[in-house]
Amino acid sequence: MAETIAKIRVRYGETDQMGHAYYANYLFWFEQARGEWCRDRGFAYLDLEKLGYFLPVVEVHARYKGEVKYDDWIQVEVRVTEIKRAAIRFDYVVTNESTGAISTEGYTWHVLMGSERKAVSIPASIREMLDRQPGDVPRLD
Amino acid sequence: MAETIAKIRVRYGETDQMGHAYYANYLFWFEQARGEWCRDRGFAYLDLEKLGYFLPVVEVHARYKGEVKYDDWIQVEVRVTEIKRAAIRFDYVVTNESTGAISTEGYTWHVLMGSERKAVSIPASIREMLDRQPGDVPRLD
Amino acid sequence: MAETIAKIRVRYGETDQMGHAYYANYLFWFEQARGEWCRDRGFAYLDLEKLGYFLPVVEVHARYKGEVKYDDWIQVEVRVTEIKRAAIRFDYVVTNESTGAISTEGYTWHVLMGSERKAVSIPASIREMLDRQPGDVPRLD
Amino acid sequence: MAETIAKIRVRYGETDQMGHAYYANYLFWFEQARGEWCRDRGFAYLDLEKLGYFLPVVEVHARYKGEVKYDDWIQVEVRVTEIKRAAIRFDYVVTNESTGAISTEGYTWHVLMGSERKAVSIPASIREMLDRQPGDVPRLD
Repeated sequence: MAETIAKIRVRYGETDQMGHAYYANYLFWFEQARGEWCRDRGFAYLDLEKLGYFLPVVEVHARYKGEVKYDDWIQVEVRVTEIKRAAIRFDYVVTNESTGAISTEGYTWHVLMGSERKAVSIPASIREMLDRQPGDVPRLD
Repeated sequence: MAETIAKIRVRYGETDQMGHAYYANYLFWFEQARGEWCRDRGFAYLDLEKLGYFLPVVEVHARYKGEVKYDDWIQVEVRVTEIKRAAIRFDYVVTNESTGAISTEGYTWHVLMGSERKAVSIPASIREMLDRQPGDVPRLD
Repeated sequence: MAETIAKIRVRYGETDQMGHAYYANYLFWFEQARGEWCRDRGFAYLDLEKLGYFLPVVEVHARYKGEVKYDDWIQVEVRVTEIKRAAIRFDYVVTNESTGAISTEGYTWHVLMGSERKAVSIPASIREMLDRQPGDVPRLD
Repeated sequence: MAETIAKIRVRYGETDQMGHAYYANYLFWFEQARGEWCRDRGFAYLDLEKLGYFLPVVEVHARYKGEVKYDDWIQVEVRVTEIKRAAIRFDYVVTNESTGAISTEGYTWHVLMGSERKAVSIPASIREMLDRQPGDVPRLD
């Protein structure tokens, strides 16, 4: 499925004394990229919550291959690689635009939860949103 | 009024590339110290929320006088210095235990909000909790 | 002096269980706006560090007037309001673009430190950079 | 190999609007537990840096099975499960003490880097430190 690219500038407060971005911050960037992924498909993640759904992370994996530093522009390429009955997987490639090198690769698994905070099958109306490609509907800005 | 002291070890992820703790992290530590302040008076901040109240921060001030580094033990001394009709002020002194030097001094103002998320006068039942001294009731662990 | 405006989208991880942005995150946003302020004047904050200078925060103040929520666009307006021999003050106004309301106002004081990590008088070469107005030199992207 | 247990109280600022701890915060807790693991073996992680070594994270995995909330005590059980020529793996089990339930399981892989910031074989002197069991030498507090 088509990817979405989020561009993010690394904050000073996201570095640590080793001089590059602390490993936990990538998870914030993954989240920001997921938000952009939704917007490229005409909805906001918040719309899911307004419909009574949550999409919490149940698994995360990241492999750190190269560092990113303060003030670097990074590019987070995100795509959905698998959709199961109640779960969805996003894959990420973080590239350091300053060097062109791949910094980090990872994925997250999410489970769709209803208002009872229990896993529910992805309803057709939500599935339709997840199956959209960028351009199918106007991007939500 | 009596102080409460919270002891906190600085995390690696709380440092930045300058080699000491990033300035925003002190606000997390202030919050942790406020939680301890409540516990020293026999209740949890969460109890206020369970009673339908919130105590959001409406103002913060901090003066950074000396740095703290990764793995340092810091001591956050917190006390209530003023209580108004609907507002409460906490003052903080952060000391770097490794050096004995004062690192940071600050204060926060909070407004009591009811379930409508509007400022409300502090009711007598809450005021009684805020007026407690450590030892008046058993500490909540 | 002229202002710079940074636009930032609030991350999910920047909210707390009260449902809006946690108060410490504004300090990250202030920092991001300072970075943009430099770029509007043709240099990166990092350039100062490369020249052997640091500009650590020695004081921060923020007054929270209105909340911002997940996915809101905020606008951080930053300007320099005072320059002393070795110190510089930035003022901030954070506006919630979704509502148009002012969310937070604040300021930070910074001291120029040399490679010895001691306060130094702002040299003429740095002062010239700080005195620039947007448009005096090409923006650094 | 023997485990070390770190006890951590969840901060308000570590929650998100879903009402429980944001997924990135577990990585801070893993780090805090690694620090305790070192101290149980008589040294601080910082000692490694003072000896000219770094131990950056090159891979992380976490499986979120149950939530933790504000003010919960969590227990992070950490142990080393594999040591290679230049790499070391830590495994984590996060338990919510309030409920007794396992919240999260994960692991991190680290590579030993020398002052050139390149991977180096773990020297015997470091290996000896990593092979210690709690009680072999006095804990570093």
